[in-house]
Amino acid sequence: MKKSLKQIVGSGLSVSLLALSVAGAASAAETTTTPAAPTTPAAQSKNLIVLIGDGMGPAEVTAARYYSKKFLNKDRLELDGGYYVGKATTYSQAGPYTSESGAVTDSAAAGTAFSTGNKTYNNAISVSNGEVAKPFASVIEAAMKQGKATGLVTTDSIVGATPAVWASHVRQRSNQNAIASQYLTSGVNVLFGGGKANFVTKDEKGKRTDKNIIPDFEAKGFKTAYDKKGLDAIPATAGNALGLFAMNEIPYVLDREASTPSLPQLSQKALELLSQNKNGFVLLVEQGRIDHAGHANDLPSNIQELLELDATFKTLVDFAKKDGNTSVVVTADHETGGLSLGINNVYELNVDLFNKQKHSYEYLDGILKTAQTADDVRKIVADNIGFTDLSDDEIALILKGDGSSYGRSGGYNAVVSKRLAVGWTGHGHTGVDVGVWAYGPIASLVKGDIDNTDVAKSGAKVIGADLAAATKELQDKYLYPLFKVTRDNKTLFTAKSLAEALDIKVTWDEATKSVVLAKDSQKLTVLVETGAITDNGAASALVGNVDNGKLYLPLEAFTKLTGKSLTWDAVNERIVKN
Amino acid sequence: MKKSLKQIVGSGLSVSLLALSVAGAASAAETTTTPAAPTTPAAQSKNLIVLIGDGMGPAEVTAARYYSKKFLNKDRLELDGGYYVGKATTYSQAGPYTSESGAVTDSAAAGTAFSTGNKTYNNAISVSNGEVAKPFASVIEAAMKQGKATGLVTTDSIVGATPAVWASHVRQRSNQNAIASQYLTSGVNVLFGGGKANFVTKDEKGKRTDKNIIPDFEAKGFKTAYDKKGLDAIPATAGNALGLFAMNEIPYVLDREASTPSLPQLSQKALELLSQNKNGFVLLVEQGRIDHAGHANDLPSNIQELLELDATFKTLVDFAKKDGNTSVVVTADHETGGLSLGINNVYELNVDLFNKQKHSYEYLDGILKTAQTADDVRKIVADNIGFTDLSDDEIALILKGDGSSYGRSGGYNAVVSKRLAVGWTGHGHTGVDVGVWAYGPIASLVKGDIDNTDVAKSGAKVIGADLAAATKELQDKYLYPLFKVTRDNKTLFTAKSLAEALDIKVTWDEATKSVVLAKDSQKLTVLVETGAITDNGAASALVGNVDNGKLYLPLEAFTKLTGKSLTWDAVNERIVKN
Repeated sequence: MKKSLKQIVGSGLSVSLLALSVAGAASAAETTTTPAAPTTPAAQSKNLIVLIGDGMGPAEVTAARYYSKKFLNKDRLELDGGYYVGKATTYSQAGPYTSESGAVTDSAAAGTAFSTGNKTYNNAISVSNGEVAKPFASVIEAAMKQGKATGLVTTDSIVGATPAVWASHVRQRSNQNAIASQYLTSGVNVLFGGGKANFVTKDEKGKRTDKNIIPDFEAKGFKTAYDKKGLDAIPATAGNALGLFAMNEIPYVLDREASTPSLPQLSQKALELLSQNKNGFVLLVEQGRIDHAGHANDLPSNIQELLELDATFKTLVDFAKKDGNTSVVVTADHETGGLSLGINNVYELNVDLFNKQKHSYEYLDGILKTAQTADDVRKIVADNIGFTDLSDDEIALILKGDGSSYGRSGGYNAVVSKRLAVGWTGHGHTGVDVGVWAYGPIASLVKGDIDNTDVAKSGAKVIGADLAAATKELQDKYLYPLFKVTRDNKTLFTAKSLAEALDIKVTWDEATKSVVLAKDSQKLTVLVETGAITDNGAASALVGNVDNGKLYLPLEAFTKLTGKSLTWDAVNERIVKN
Repeated sequence: MKKSLKQIVGSGLSVSLLALSVAGAASAAETTTTPAAPTTPAAQSKNLIVLIGDGMGPAEVTAARYYSKKFLNKDRLELDGGYYVGKATTYSQAGPYTSESGAVTDSAAAGTAFSTGNKTYNNAISVSNGEVAKPFASVIEAAMKQGKATGLVTTDSIVGATPAVWASHVRQRSNQNAIASQYLTSGVNVLFGGGKANFVTKDEKGKRTDKNIIPDFEAKGFKTAYDKKGLDAIPATAGNALGLFAMNEIPYVLDREASTPSLPQLSQKALELLSQNKNGFVLLVEQGRIDHAGHANDLPSNIQELLELDATFKTLVDFAKKDGNTSVVVTADHETGGLSLGINNVYELNVDLFNKQKHSYEYLDGILKTAQTADDVRKIVADNIGFTDLSDDEIALILKGDGSSYGRSGGYNAVVSKRLAVGWTGHGHTGVDVGVWAYGPIASLVKGDIDNTDVAKSGAKVIGADLAAATKELQDKYLYPLFKVTRDNKTLFTAKSLAEALDIKVTWDEATKSVVLAKDSQKLTVLVETGAITDNGAASALVGNVDNGKLYLPLEAFTKLTGKSLTWDAVNERIVKN
């Protein structure tokens, strides 16, 4: 809500300014990464590969193994081949945007943890938890300083939280156009995923209002690809490559056409490109749709996505084994859906039905919406999964939907899950610890009981990257403050927290009911009743704004106080310190 | 169902005897344990401690950690202190008593796996999966051959499946009186738990019809104890001790009185007793009520039981560290209840409510049953967990029950779980992999992706016990066949499978429509139409019985064929080969 200064002044709220209070969580975890105390010198790797199964909780892995045993004649997953080393806690921090305690993380906070080594709030893309957030450098950003090549590969949108945390910084993960823009200057060499919509304009069925930014990537030497053929055409020596294989997410394995590359194919191409760099590389690969299938409670799709991660793991480990100088670490950000293998009192799992589904709920949803009668539903379900004996209750559930935003496909997934004898406790994330698998020198660093932040710390350590230095460089340049835009389109910042971040002294003058901001010889005095500002005693054109007991100031006030040129980057919602 | 021979003869079912078919799963996994191929010689331990958290799935551990952080000012559980080494698959085998696929195990099959190294069907207490089951020796039974002391400690009944698999053998876990009887001759030195009911007669509020068997234990030198004071009075030099601290399960931590010893106290006393043996010891400790609280979906109780396991782990590891010659391994048999930390779409967990419950659902159940009005429910719930704002829907759910056998306390647990923001998918077990923690030389043997059978194999290896030899000794002595008791109280056995187990040749004679059983020079011919038996051509008083296409014979037929004295042990439902 935006309020004018005048509205506020009459409300008497300025009284609480006495406390100069900062509402909510403030300065937690703003410190930069501290490397763990050195013990015996660990073996190092030139290359690091991080593979993330978004939403890949313990039960999801077990379910895929049951499928593998039943239908693929494989007793164990590729992941099960001696790579399991431990498990990670995933909790995040209480944050400014929601009432969450942080007990259950989202992909942004978890991603920030395993890419930068820092805890933060749900929603944050590699920035700290505070009114004035600070950027945290990722292992990829630190590795660039070593001259290593870097890449992001995902089946999700390339601007989704899990890839984003490695090469961009925004307060809110939904600011995906900014994430796409930041990739352009990030220095990342390979970007493969969905998410074309955040690179092209609304006229082109995209989401940008400024311009199509793909030509900017091309101007920087990025080869582009939009399908399997295009991917294959990228030469290994291209250096930089941008592959956008869907407007948003890459379709589920069950729904994918031959023209869409698979995650192992994307990963293989990324390896070819990145391994050209004699200094080594860091590659993030995400199978992002285990999570999506978990949100929807679609186990047959969930399994196929997890098996694609498993095949991708084989591709990556095969490379690492051949290369001999590569560490691979695999983990998840969190579990999704509250999956359990077994429901009610039946000690049973109908594994024989795990492979019957032809298409995901996502593909089916549009078809289910056209159903008019029970017979329509019967036919659609029989065609997709072969159940020809739907009960009246099951048909009613599908027609009515499961009460969630998944509608009829939610109802369908509930019917299927019950027949498979698997249960879910919702459509969101859950807080169970997640598995950690590893190959190469990183394995000894991430074994046992770890926290998700240890993945980043260990990754940096194993390649000798300096997270703290890279973070300092970013923090010297950017601040990510809470801000508000007034009715007359002015951007204002919370005086106390931004002043603190800029080493400006803030005091309260009871006699004049004024807030005094001072740095070196510069002093601004803000009369809270009117917002009027005096500059070293002289009247100023600057004006403050009191809203809900907090003083807000325009950026010019801070420029004046610091004597530095501070500029507001509205796209990325950050202050650039020049 | 018992059918007389005459009923069967008229049914024409004998035709299927042509195939001499064995219905259902038969000979799977009847082989004895094969030790893994030796690699580098592993370090050994004199002592082995196995700690089982029954029903302790991944989410249960995370939940207890959240409690620990919030209320105990401990960031990590004792288990989290660097002991986590891997995870174990838990599946069992399809079995003869249920339609289960084995995808979701029970405690009996899981226990058989981690105590003996062999997979079996749900319900089996350390016997193989077949019409004629064979006993599998446990690490404890193998350790006795080394002269080691052994002990079983649990908060469950001492004749529950998890302790039972280590020192008894029955086809069905429900045969708990037999398990108690087998303990007497098992050679186990320390037995601490609940389950007094299976040691005393119905007249004494127990479950036995034969006699109170506690004097038999006393006659063998067992010191007995029934409360904390009695436990304390057992001298460390007692050698043998039987502690029965409840008629059935030991009460939940939340409901326990001071006179009832805790699991750490029981474990400490067991260590004192067993460590007197200069040859070392093997100790099984089970926290059995994590499972019970999971079945009931009572998270606050579940957490307290898990924290008691955690405290017990500290007791055990502290001993092992001081002793310097002890391996400790911790795992679970399965998850119970399908717990997830987070429900619906809320990324939240109300950890602040995790410590509000005063008593378990079990204690509360009797009180809830007395409730007549909504106000009664309000008062009971407010008294027990402090919720003073129950909605009409919540009250209705409690009064009506959750539809399970838990009745009103099930409704209560559903209300509490929802407020805690945790979910369950039923009252049974689920199939997710379980964690493995270890200390000492066993740690390197159970790390990574293991199966629950690897716990037994590694345990035997680390103490140098010979599972195969101990199993052979048992199998030379006992068989556990399927059997039926006829109306006239005769016990009959399936001819084909028992003949196979006794190396008796079985053939079908089409000319006479007879089954011919032969061993050495002895031959019995059974005319299937009448069941009449000829003994080497001469008429015999023995008679066969055809039921549902299967030929059954009395034990005397097999005694005659083998020339050995075979006796039927009706209590333990086994054939004793003398």
